[in-house]
Amino acid sequence: MRTALVIGTGLIGTSAALALAGRGVTVHLRDHDPERARTAAALGAGTDAPPEGPVDLVVIAVPPAHTATTLAEAMHAGLARGYLDVASVKGRPRRELEGLSLDLSAYIGSHPMSGKERSGPLAATADLFEGRPWVLTPTRDTDTEVLNLALELVALCRAVPVVMDADAHDRAVALVSHTPQLVSSMVAAQLREADETAVRLCGQGIRDVTRIAASDPRMWLEILSANPGPVADVLAGVAADLDETVRALRSLQSSDDDKRREGADGIEDVLRRGTEGRARVPGKHGAAPAVYEVVAVLISDKPGELARIFADTDRAGVNIEDVRIEHATGQQAGLVQLMVEPAAALGLTAALRERGWSIRQ
Amino acid sequence: MRTALVIGTGLIGTSAALALAGRGVTVHLRDHDPERARTAAALGAGTDAPPEGPVDLVVIAVPPAHTATTLAEAMHAGLARGYLDVASVKGRPRRELEGLSLDLSAYIGSHPMSGKERSGPLAATADLFEGRPWVLTPTRDTDTEVLNLALELVALCRAVPVVMDADAHDRAVALVSHTPQLVSSMVAAQLREADETAVRLCGQGIRDVTRIAASDPRMWLEILSANPGPVADVLAGVAADLDETVRALRSLQSSDDDKRREGADGIEDVLRRGTEGRARVPGKHGAAPAVYEVVAVLISDKPGELARIFADTDRAGVNIEDVRIEHATGQQAGLVQLMVEPAAALGLTAALRERGWSIRQ
Repeated sequence: MRTALVIGTGLIGTSAALALAGRGVTVHLRDHDPERARTAAALGAGTDAPPEGPVDLVVIAVPPAHTATTLAEAMHAGLARGYLDVASVKGRPRRELEGLSLDLSAYIGSHPMSGKERSGPLAATADLFEGRPWVLTPTRDTDTEVLNLALELVALCRAVPVVMDADAHDRAVALVSHTPQLVSSMVAAQLREADETAVRLCGQGIRDVTRIAASDPRMWLEILSANPGPVADVLAGVAADLDETVRALRSLQSSDDDKRREGADGIEDVLRRGTEGRARVPGKHGAAPAVYEVVAVLISDKPGELARIFADTDRAGVNIEDVRIEHATGQQAGLVQLMVEPAAALGLTAALRERGWSIRQ
Repeated sequence: MRTALVIGTGLIGTSAALALAGRGVTVHLRDHDPERARTAAALGAGTDAPPEGPVDLVVIAVPPAHTATTLAEAMHAGLARGYLDVASVKGRPRRELEGLSLDLSAYIGSHPMSGKERSGPLAATADLFEGRPWVLTPTRDTDTEVLNLALELVALCRAVPVVMDADAHDRAVALVSHTPQLVSSMVAAQLREADETAVRLCGQGIRDVTRIAASDPRMWLEILSANPGPVADVLAGVAADLDETVRALRSLQSSDDDKRREGADGIEDVLRRGTEGRARVPGKHGAAPAVYEVVAVLISDKPGELARIFADTDRAGVNIEDVRIEHATGQQAGLVQLMVEPAAALGLTAALRERGWSIRQ
């Protein structure tokens, strides 16, 4: 790929342009707001001058609602050999394009699975996609040349290509991203009316479950509005489980032994299915989550404590797989949970003890 | 407090005994399994010889199902000036005791909000309760002397006393602990049948929401069986929200503009209530969660990378409030998210850049 035109210079478009420009591709930038295109150009993402002839690839990075019409215009104008969009939903834009009876052999849908809280060209970085999945949704009509242009784009952005059917993609993000967001919000919403004393009892569990509930409602309304069907289907499955579980809990209150046993079986079933499902969530390097040993170290709140722990860990020659910092309610003291390969746990505990750390086993 | 008798030498009982013995209290240990009491004694938690006369405080640390009967026996035998239990549910044992028409002025219910994956005396540590909330549920019948014995126990364990009504406690743990556990399991359960490709798209959001779904089903069945009513009530609230949300998503699929607007309002409402509820979750030091700036640093998988980051952070004189390590699907590269006071973010970014780190803004 030697030339590209990025239409829509927000966070995603400008980040892709920065990655391409940084790897020697001549990038042209266009936005409905010329000021944004100028900003992206000033950041080194390319030039806001129009290309003189057709480019190799047009990247459409406008909001989902405008994706199909922008694509159609670009294709009618014959701006490129290949056309790719990055909308977070893939089924609807494809159907809209098909409705416009265009030749779609030069088009491929895609969705880079990365983002951040902030948006706009100023939030863009060349490494935004590094190591993240980038979904591609070719059809049997897609030219191999266009698929290869898309794969080259993904490679230049250092992302990991994942080929999927458009509707399968929409169902997948409903399951792994959109549903968890809504459920997290619902659990957090229960805390609005809670007594101050009850809230003081919050621990790390509810902290993790409700973390993403702090996300921007307007942004999530847009995402969910573009994918309502698949999200409703997954949520309906959760709702059925939830009703079953409430019934099971009520049975546990019964004076009838059989009913109580029935309730216990129902609760144990949902908990077991949960552990099975959780076991499928990829851990580091996309592998099934390794079972790590936790070495829990008490620290004070002084700066430098973490540096000392990790320096001492390093001296012990142990690789930390994951870290969790838990600060105790109403205290300066905190707990650092170091997750390490089981084989390394004992040695690390001994090494840290020797260096004066208080370890909670 | 000079003397105590701990009945039930599991994780909680032995940990409390270790804390008391470590601070000069003469601790006697008793367990229905003498071997466990011997083990606790061998760990330095006290003596498994019976006390010669009444002790100051009896700590009942047996499973919830046996709490009331064990307490009744101890009180009939006149073993102490004060009696305290540590069962994770408080309403039921109190009602069972009242059913036995005992004088409860010498009794106080309590629940230390700490635990760990492992159980039994060998998992016990003197600092298990350090900085954690320890709920006390006195009634107007409770002798002040007994309340003060309990407060002394909590202080000697370095925990934070929180006084609550017994039923309010059970409703609170249903809200902040038991419900999040079940909902996390239900979201995780949806992944059991998912395509491998869909699972590859999992990000940090679903990882956090489903983390506690990996907990031991048998342990949680016990906890939930002891508190079914309050948990069912909270879950029913979540279920109502869930049904509303599914309806709202279906409305978003409608061709009718008013219906779609109605759907959007419904979705935005649950998301907003979620952010409000999340804002009440205490962060470090029990304060409302501070809004931290995230400085995201790309790292390789070599050991020592974390040590270097935290050493460089320390040199920059910045205090890390929290850390999250995110490993990229199918890549060795990882992302370390350093959460710092907003005022410190720019300086830290500059300092780490200067030391050669690649920062994702």
